[in-house]
Amino acid sequence: MPNSADERFLEKAIHLAERHSRDGIHGPFGAVVTRGNVIVGEGWNSVVASSDPTAHAEIGAIRDACRNLGTHNLAECTLYSSCEPCPMCLAAIYWARIERIVFACNAADAARAGFDDAEIYQEIEKKWSLRKIASRQLNRESGLRVFETWIQNPRKVEY
Amino acid sequence: MPNSADERFLEKAIHLAERHSRDGIHGPFGAVVTRGNVIVGEGWNSVVASSDPTAHAEIGAIRDACRNLGTHNLAECTLYSSCEPCPMCLAAIYWARIERIVFACNAADAARAGFDDAEIYQEIEKKWSLRKIASRQLNRESGLRVFETWIQNPRKVEY
Repeated sequence: MPNSADERFLEKAIHLAERHSRDGIHGPFGAVVTRGNVIVGEGWNSVVASSDPTAHAEIGAIRDACRNLGTHNLAECTLYSSCEPCPMCLAAIYWARIERIVFACNAADAARAGFDDAEIYQEIEKKWSLRKIASRQLNRESGLRVFETWIQNPRKVEY
Repeated sequence: MPNSADERFLEKAIHLAERHSRDGIHGPFGAVVTRGNVIVGEGWNSVVASSDPTAHAEIGAIRDACRNLGTHNLAECTLYSSCEPCPMCLAAIYWARIERIVFACNAADAARAGFDDAEIYQEIEKKWSLRKIASRQLNRESGLRVFETWIQNPRKVEY
């Protein structure tokens, strides 16, 4: 029996993973976002079901929470995930300013179930020119003009 | 004048960044996804405009391309971005199986415009217990049962 708030919310995330993945089309991952001990967002993996490689459980829960709260800033929120976040979701958690993460399974457990993100973690640490995905930098001056215009824009909303 | 296909598609991504960020609400980032020298997806930063911290240009372009092509797999696609991808977008590019990346500005250029992802790159490299965001692992056994059920599920669609 879950006996702390952390355990209770984490079991909710695990339950979302279990319930949605029964069909074999939604991956076995669930997540919830809480603020002040209230669930404000829920998500589950729907990469295959919605043809969206970014539709991980944590991304879904963050987007749902932001929609419900009307903000892109989830400071003071906790994210509960049935599994340790992949690099994409982890970076999204930082961008969302989430305060705390609670998770159940770890990355090795996910790898054994067929979801391996170890290579992505390794690739991210490399300089772009050394990564497996061929990368090329071009037209930097043209891109810099957009940043320069942004810096000078008195209407810009910074975040 | 852009004179190669790479330059032409990259200028399109830069143009999306420029056009959408004029209002000061959309961040100065744009991206396109191509397959076989045809644009199949477009995106621009709408973090503030749509209250979504995951709404980076590359994520938008990947989701748009997947919607248009009806798949979560963008093998044989190239992503053009007005700026070097942040860790969230880079990981999304790997999950999407994109083949090649072409970008204009680098991360330091983005940082000077107020968009700094250096700390996120540093955090991702650390073990979870050493990161700045407080993290906690709980109820692993409960989470493992969902993976076990998934592994045994004859209907599961792997990706």
